[in-house]
Amino acid sequence: MATRTSRWWGTRADRGDARRLEAFSDGVLAIAITLLILDVRVEPEPGESLAEALRGSLPQIGAYAASFLQIGIIWTNHHSLFRLVTRVDQLLLLLNLLLLGSVSFLPLPTRLVAEHTTGVDAQTAVLLYGGTLTASALFYNLIWRHVVRGGLLVDGVSRAFVRDVDVRYLAGLCSYAAATAVAVRSPLTAVLLTVLLALVFVLGPSPRPFTIR
Amino acid sequence: MATRTSRWWGTRADRGDARRLEAFSDGVLAIAITLLILDVRVEPEPGESLAEALRGSLPQIGAYAASFLQIGIIWTNHHSLFRLVTRVDQLLLLLNLLLLGSVSFLPLPTRLVAEHTTGVDAQTAVLLYGGTLTASALFYNLIWRHVVRGGLLVDGVSRAFVRDVDVRYLAGLCSYAAATAVAVRSPLTAVLLTVLLALVFVLGPSPRPFTIR
Amino acid sequence: MATRTSRWWGTRADRGDARRLEAFSDGVLAIAITLLILDVRVEPEPGESLAEALRGSLPQIGAYAASFLQIGIIWTNHHSLFRLVTRVDQLLLLLNLLLLGSVSFLPLPTRLVAEHTTGVDAQTAVLLYGGTLTASALFYNLIWRHVVRGGLLVDGVSRAFVRDVDVRYLAGLCSYAAATAVAVRSPLTAVLLTVLLALVFVLGPSPRPFTIR
Amino acid sequence: MATRTSRWWGTRADRGDARRLEAFSDGVLAIAITLLILDVRVEPEPGESLAEALRGSLPQIGAYAASFLQIGIIWTNHHSLFRLVTRVDQLLLLLNLLLLGSVSFLPLPTRLVAEHTTGVDAQTAVLLYGGTLTASALFYNLIWRHVVRGGLLVDGVSRAFVRDVDVRYLAGLCSYAAATAVAVRSPLTAVLLTVLLALVFVLGPSPRPFTIR
Repeated sequence: MATRTSRWWGTRADRGDARRLEAFSDGVLAIAITLLILDVRVEPEPGESLAEALRGSLPQIGAYAASFLQIGIIWTNHHSLFRLVTRVDQLLLLLNLLLLGSVSFLPLPTRLVAEHTTGVDAQTAVLLYGGTLTASALFYNLIWRHVVRGGLLVDGVSRAFVRDVDVRYLAGLCSYAAATAVAVRSPLTAVLLTVLLALVFVLGPSPRPFTIR
Repeated sequence: MATRTSRWWGTRADRGDARRLEAFSDGVLAIAITLLILDVRVEPEPGESLAEALRGSLPQIGAYAASFLQIGIIWTNHHSLFRLVTRVDQLLLLLNLLLLGSVSFLPLPTRLVAEHTTGVDAQTAVLLYGGTLTASALFYNLIWRHVVRGGLLVDGVSRAFVRDVDVRYLAGLCSYAAATAVAVRSPLTAVLLTVLLALVFVLGPSPRPFTIR
Repeated sequence: MATRTSRWWGTRADRGDARRLEAFSDGVLAIAITLLILDVRVEPEPGESLAEALRGSLPQIGAYAASFLQIGIIWTNHHSLFRLVTRVDQLLLLLNLLLLGSVSFLPLPTRLVAEHTTGVDAQTAVLLYGGTLTASALFYNLIWRHVVRGGLLVDGVSRAFVRDVDVRYLAGLCSYAAATAVAVRSPLTAVLLTVLLALVFVLGPSPRPFTIR
Repeated sequence: MATRTSRWWGTRADRGDARRLEAFSDGVLAIAITLLILDVRVEPEPGESLAEALRGSLPQIGAYAASFLQIGIIWTNHHSLFRLVTRVDQLLLLLNLLLLGSVSFLPLPTRLVAEHTTGVDAQTAVLLYGGTLTASALFYNLIWRHVVRGGLLVDGVSRAFVRDVDVRYLAGLCSYAAATAVAVRSPLTAVLLTVLLALVFVLGPSPRPFTIR
């Protein structure tokens, strides 16, 4: 039965709204992930061979690969989370927009990390890079909390599952923040830690949302 | 029942057409919002640290954030409006194209606003920026009027709701035009006003389209 | 009943395939239309005000608007045509790819038309611009012919409608080719003619595909 | 019947997941294919006519066309393969991400192939170009193997069909690798071979996935 609240325009809506939210988010994430390559430039200097120039571009190519993985993981998470969303309200739209904003912003720190590999500038770049990923993790936490408390969750999700995701998302946020903090000591280690975190999240075990009946 | 008029090719069609219109619009809006970051360039000059260069890029980053919010709001509106559209005709296609054109154009004035922050050039830039947003608001008004008068609205929308949206859209148009006019006095105030307007639209209360039965 | 032929992998498929073809095409067209603005650059020279620089960029802005309209019309056409497609085969995939290729190519001649506004270079630029649009019109004709002859059309389309579209598509192709040829005499007239043609196609009357029962 | 395993969050899911995977992949492929034109730059040097500059840009335009065709074929393959996927697991998400990563990377080697047409640099460029295509073919093989062995295939696909695709995919991988190796001798021949392979794959006969009942 369509409830009264589901009839508010732009306030609460049905699963169709979640669909279009997913479609728009898919678009933004797909574009952000594909734009990364535009910043990888390989231009041999006079007297330099292309092979040498490519070797010199390895930090850029590595940064491309790392950010590709990060955005890919973010998409995977988005996909898993929104499967459990049954309704969309304006706050969810705004929080999702903030998440997409932080992801769209990622090409900038990615470029800076690739261009500044030593000294205090490397530290600045990695702090911005890790900070952006930490912001994404923060927005995920806020989205999840709002979905659960705002009653936007599909029916049949167990309490144990919710608590499990609570813990995992909070752990993700803390891990990214900690990895970012490492940049003060060693920027390269910090970047490698964020890559490791992403791999853990994509390959690690997942909780199940429904009680088995 | 599929009516006769719904069988005209490209003239009137069914809800499936509205779907593909939404999909195309989602694509354009998702791309426009993601391209914004390409114009944020942080390149330290010789002897300048990256942290200093980032501070110098704050106007660009602020302009990025402001336009990201604007396009996000425009998407949210598009989403709310087209949920109420049941059929698509050629004039609606054209009006929607004009709306998408004004949004796709936004990266240009955004860049100009970020690059020209003082004097008469700041005024020119903000007039173009506000003018583009005002044009978007105008096209929204035209789309809404055409949807209502052209009989493209879904069934069951109350007369009170239509009048309510009439007023809100007109108020939006006037507000953006007024904020733009402020640029003649203070460009920065004008930009902040447009951001404020966007926040009001995303967080404010929404009318409901259906009479509760 | 799913026919035998519809079970060939990649050869003939069901309406679901047409859906994904549409989705991919929507993506390409949405991106091509949104990328156009990246080529509009407004950079005041020393001593020049932004307002003067904007006036100097009017050809670029005009070219942006013209190509935005062209791609928008192409999307509208694509939308109308593929509503009538019930199955997809490999030749249709290839022809559609060629169409998308010609549209994705359009940003290049658009830039050239904007940058070369006088003399023999304007003529070269407009010939390439008109030639690209003519190629798109040609691929539309080939797609339509293949859809009709290859039995990919939905049921219930009248013979009169098919003949009508045959004529219209052929007329479109000839008109674009003729407008392109005008470039040898007057490049500006040629560009204006292509804009006029696009407006005729979006606002003119459309035939109806079904016999009214 | 929804099985137990299909209820694991992010581990195994239903056909809806395959849909969103397709949508995201469509987005990435559509963007990668459309970004290619951004790297084609035609800028006449002083005293050079536009027509002469265009002739000088023919390698770039050829590289654009070749990569457009490659990504188009990759999309067609993706489309054919995922029609047969009924469930998505995390390894499939990761493998698909690697495939998309290799395709998104293609604009870079495409640019290098266009810019370096003679000597040892041409060889380096074509090795990277062919290597990227070979990597895509490799990821296709891995995806296919995982789909078959991981039980993600739709019901009713015949054993003969699976073996047929096994052979075809392996042949594709070996052909691209061989074409790449030719670059050591003749870079141009290697590029032409990859184009030829793409045409064979799009126009050649396809196996059928189902036994005819």
